[in-house]
Amino acid sequence: MEKLKKYVSVKDEDQFYHQGAVELLVFNFLLILTILTIWLFKNHRFRFLHETGGAMLYGLVMGLIIRYVTKASDVESGTVYECEKLKSGPSTLLINITNQVYEYQYKREISHHNVNGHQGNAMLQKMTFDPSIFFNILLPPIIFHAGYSLKKRHFFRNLGSILTYAFLGTAISCIVIGLILYGFVKAMVHTGQLKQWEFHFTDCLFFGSLMSATDPVTVLAIFHELHVDTDLYTLLFGESVLNDAVAIVLTYSISIYSPKENPNAFDAAAFFQSVGNFLGIFAGSFAMGSSYAVVTALISFTHLTKFTKLCEFPMLETGLFFLLSWSAFLSAEATGLTGIVAVLFCGVTQAHYTYNNLSEDSKMRTKQLFEFMNFFAENVIFCYMGLALFTFQNHIFNPLFICGAFVAIFVARACNIYPLSFLLNLGRKQKIPRNFQHMMMFSGLRGAIAFALAIRDTDSQPKQMMFTTALLIVFFTVWVFGGGTTPMLTWLQIRVGVDPDEDLKAEAASQSASNLDKNTTKAESAWLFRIWYGFDHKYLKPILTHTGPPLTTTLPEWCNPVARLLTSPTAYDDQFKDGDTDYIINNDELTENYESSAHIPVPARDGTGSTQATGKEDIQEGDLGLGGYKLQLQPQMNSPA
Amino acid sequence: MEKLKKYVSVKDEDQFYHQGAVELLVFNFLLILTILTIWLFKNHRFRFLHETGGAMLYGLVMGLIIRYVTKASDVESGTVYECEKLKSGPSTLLINITNQVYEYQYKREISHHNVNGHQGNAMLQKMTFDPSIFFNILLPPIIFHAGYSLKKRHFFRNLGSILTYAFLGTAISCIVIGLILYGFVKAMVHTGQLKQWEFHFTDCLFFGSLMSATDPVTVLAIFHELHVDTDLYTLLFGESVLNDAVAIVLTYSISIYSPKENPNAFDAAAFFQSVGNFLGIFAGSFAMGSSYAVVTALISFTHLTKFTKLCEFPMLETGLFFLLSWSAFLSAEATGLTGIVAVLFCGVTQAHYTYNNLSEDSKMRTKQLFEFMNFFAENVIFCYMGLALFTFQNHIFNPLFICGAFVAIFVARACNIYPLSFLLNLGRKQKIPRNFQHMMMFSGLRGAIAFALAIRDTDSQPKQMMFTTALLIVFFTVWVFGGGTTPMLTWLQIRVGVDPDEDLKAEAASQSASNLDKNTTKAESAWLFRIWYGFDHKYLKPILTHTGPPLTTTLPEWCNPVARLLTSPTAYDDQFKDGDTDYIINNDELTENYESSAHIPVPARDGTGSTQATGKEDIQEGDLGLGGYKLQLQPQMNSPA
Repeated sequence: MEKLKKYVSVKDEDQFYHQGAVELLVFNFLLILTILTIWLFKNHRFRFLHETGGAMLYGLVMGLIIRYVTKASDVESGTVYECEKLKSGPSTLLINITNQVYEYQYKREISHHNVNGHQGNAMLQKMTFDPSIFFNILLPPIIFHAGYSLKKRHFFRNLGSILTYAFLGTAISCIVIGLILYGFVKAMVHTGQLKQWEFHFTDCLFFGSLMSATDPVTVLAIFHELHVDTDLYTLLFGESVLNDAVAIVLTYSISIYSPKENPNAFDAAAFFQSVGNFLGIFAGSFAMGSSYAVVTALISFTHLTKFTKLCEFPMLETGLFFLLSWSAFLSAEATGLTGIVAVLFCGVTQAHYTYNNLSEDSKMRTKQLFEFMNFFAENVIFCYMGLALFTFQNHIFNPLFICGAFVAIFVARACNIYPLSFLLNLGRKQKIPRNFQHMMMFSGLRGAIAFALAIRDTDSQPKQMMFTTALLIVFFTVWVFGGGTTPMLTWLQIRVGVDPDEDLKAEAASQSASNLDKNTTKAESAWLFRIWYGFDHKYLKPILTHTGPPLTTTLPEWCNPVARLLTSPTAYDDQFKDGDTDYIINNDELTENYESSAHIPVPARDGTGSTQATGKEDIQEGDLGLGGYKLQLQPQMNSPA
Repeated sequence: MEKLKKYVSVKDEDQFYHQGAVELLVFNFLLILTILTIWLFKNHRFRFLHETGGAMLYGLVMGLIIRYVTKASDVESGTVYECEKLKSGPSTLLINITNQVYEYQYKREISHHNVNGHQGNAMLQKMTFDPSIFFNILLPPIIFHAGYSLKKRHFFRNLGSILTYAFLGTAISCIVIGLILYGFVKAMVHTGQLKQWEFHFTDCLFFGSLMSATDPVTVLAIFHELHVDTDLYTLLFGESVLNDAVAIVLTYSISIYSPKENPNAFDAAAFFQSVGNFLGIFAGSFAMGSSYAVVTALISFTHLTKFTKLCEFPMLETGLFFLLSWSAFLSAEATGLTGIVAVLFCGVTQAHYTYNNLSEDSKMRTKQLFEFMNFFAENVIFCYMGLALFTFQNHIFNPLFICGAFVAIFVARACNIYPLSFLLNLGRKQKIPRNFQHMMMFSGLRGAIAFALAIRDTDSQPKQMMFTTALLIVFFTVWVFGGGTTPMLTWLQIRVGVDPDEDLKAEAASQSASNLDKNTTKAESAWLFRIWYGFDHKYLKPILTHTGPPLTTTLPEWCNPVARLLTSPTAYDDQFKDGDTDYIINNDELTENYESSAHIPVPARDGTGSTQATGKEDIQEGDLGLGGYKLQLQPQMNSPA
């Protein structure tokens, strides 16, 4: 008899596995539908609903079906049981129920008011998956891909502006949203709309920080497809990627800001601790990410005499690349830093150094692998956001709060873009034109990061209200602004169909022509970057990659023995080759840009213009003192061991 | 004050996320170590420890460290709590502990004797992950890859033998292991070594079925690297891949065999039900897998007039390919069939049809994607097997049972290979030589599937004993047999360094030479396959892919309107092109093989030998009635719309 019972339980367990399969199948089905829709849209050149919007829409419909069609099967789950013997929640709980021991695993703490939300059907619960899955599995590939596919040349051209928007802009946005919302909350409490919850200013700031993360997916995908002006693309791309990192760390810093006494009063010590936390976590994560990338570069670069290079085994190389990049994320998380920030800078560094050392096969493989993972994760997240509107069980819709939030994010975006652009234009040689500013204002979509930050903590009622509001803002901005991107570009007369690689050459060419307007199309932020670039090109690149000049020429004379040891034998042959291909644009081209901007007296360039117009080959490393070694080395090239 | 508490709980939650990161980091570290070791081994051409063995070794060491170095932090977890109010185990349990509600999620049912095993540290528990992760996430890519990378030509040449080994051989192996172990168990019970548990014959058969799944990874990787004789490779590959599928379904069928009364007595009804189950599940899974692949082929083949082909968007194509293949697995699981079997046949069918329709880019992408996933999943599984020896908490080491199991698997392997080879050789024109048989006997490693099947159910003590024994057998066979593969090949004088593609040409060439011995190097199983091949080539390939002859030529005259509709416009141009490249070998070459075997009077071939020696181009589709349409169509080629 007992045997029979055991078999039944085995069957139950199988049933349990099949359940997991059903949920995954729902997602698969949604994704397949999304892909087919994208295909349809691409055929009809239909751009008013982007794939992310489509994925969200399908998710929404599916959520509706799951919510109202499937029945509430698990009645048991709403009841709260008492247990006097337990003093704290253990991670695993063994419970004896009618002489059979069951194992339960700790999931989370629930506020009393949420208990009712747990009555409902099991399907809904299973579709609402753990927020840590976002942070640990779905987000890292997206962020890594963003870093890995960064068009460095254009990025560094606009580095100053990007950093300003990302750091200062996010801070402004966070504070403005926080202030406006705090006003709304105060008013609501005053009029009795809102009970006297613990809705402090820090909570408003918390919401402000998570709502400051703009989405690097939807608009940029459209921009990419339409080949929008490269500078605008780069500004937006750089801003939204970096500002995600800033917003994540900011949200964390605010959440651990705990003033000693009155939570509404300003506590200088706690404030500075939060600021310190922010800086520490940001710098630490940056260091963690970059160091993993440097380790990868070193391993892939190893040229010990007895060893076959790793690049002869593309699978091992790709595997190592993938694992070390993921480890950067995990290590950061494990040590209390921010994995997303680490993985972003890991991606940038991998692209800058490791990519040059990879075999052709691995370059392709890593690029395609991360592209695929990015595509997949992105669509899963947007589907899930759609689903969450109906499957998440503790929504709190507060119309006034939602209105306040909408007002706040638009005002905050305006306070971020226009004043900062004005300030930047004071320093920039190539001004950010009005229509670019309007487009940046318009492109402030909120997406996966805002959602992930909001869903991470939905225990208290204010947090649930924030989550609901954040979700609605994501829906609205992705559908309305995402869909309106193409008309807006036309309306603002922003040029499309630009080839980013041809762009700079054209600029160089146009300089020699009479077009004096475009003569100022030069990058800012040269001085700081020039120092870094020189150091990078002279020392880091030769140590970490096969590209760049041999160390023997860049290090002082007396370092020669060390330099010879560290220099790859191929460095002598490869120094004129482009290590970065079309995917990651070569740094040498960077030189071209700030070299040009270094020649300040603009009319004086007219004479050299014809040289520039012939292309980048002729104008490599002009006045950075990097050109010298080449002539000096020419005779050495055939001699060294 | 309560606010402060909330912040603390947020911190706790973060701590919780970081915990997950630590465990993943451990795996990442192990995998990185494994990759570096493989690299080292490849450099030194060291083949006595295969990468899977290495991964297992590192896992073992890490398991040892985790077990004895980390401290038991979670004392709470060994205690069982009583709960009278609960009648059954709900999927989610809400518990009120000191005025705070915690949510717990159902994990599994635990036998009373296992409760003590749960005292121990939390790290150990967390490292022991859910067996469903194996089945739902890690195994599918490995099995799909096996199906997708099947060398069809060689596979179908030996189809009869492979099916015999896989179905009949697995059944023999299962029964022999079951019988021998039952003898051991009886003896142990008799001598008092084993208490009168519920260790029935069905349990022994269960163990027999899971132990009959041979590993398609370790030996084949070595074979592949050394380019071992293609026929031996194919026999082993085909056997181990298909026998996994058979063993999985067999294990399931045995586990649901529930005789009404005495579990030791033979119950004909239950037996036939199990047999019926086996056949039903196998056929159902096969159908499920193939139909998903056919759908993929049809979508990728779509050539509606207004539509751009899907292959112009490689990312969408790859995504769809991936999702539909995974859906084959999930659908099978969701409907109670066997996902692994479905995904295997899905892989085979995708390779046969869809692969031909993919763009060049997608061919590369899918190939590399699945290669990578396979590599990754494989190493994770082997690492985990190493870990499990020390981190799994309910091992039962029973020396006599273990000895019995070792004896049983060797005897069973011998009973499988030698008699079946003898029988097959009666029918085969190309005999399976003695040294091949010995090598196949030697290559009966047990790996991931046996482990996964064993870990799926470890609730009762017999099952735990089985799991421990299975784990030890996996260790032993992978290390000893895996490591001994290279010496064994030398000892048995099996030729290595064979190019599989050149192999058949060489055979063809050698036929014309005086070497009459090799003249019999022809495939068996021609008759059944010839019918299938004709049907596939004439009707399925043209409907589902861009290759094969146009339907207009293969269908009867009166079907012409339909045929014209179904035929791809490119079919007329492509019919002489090879759709399958080096990765998946073209079917046309198959013709060559059984065409050759169809010419039975061997000396008569001498005259045509010179034609054959010139290569496969000259000897396409000789006497299958497939050659006719070509001449007939030649004038049509330029005319149709």
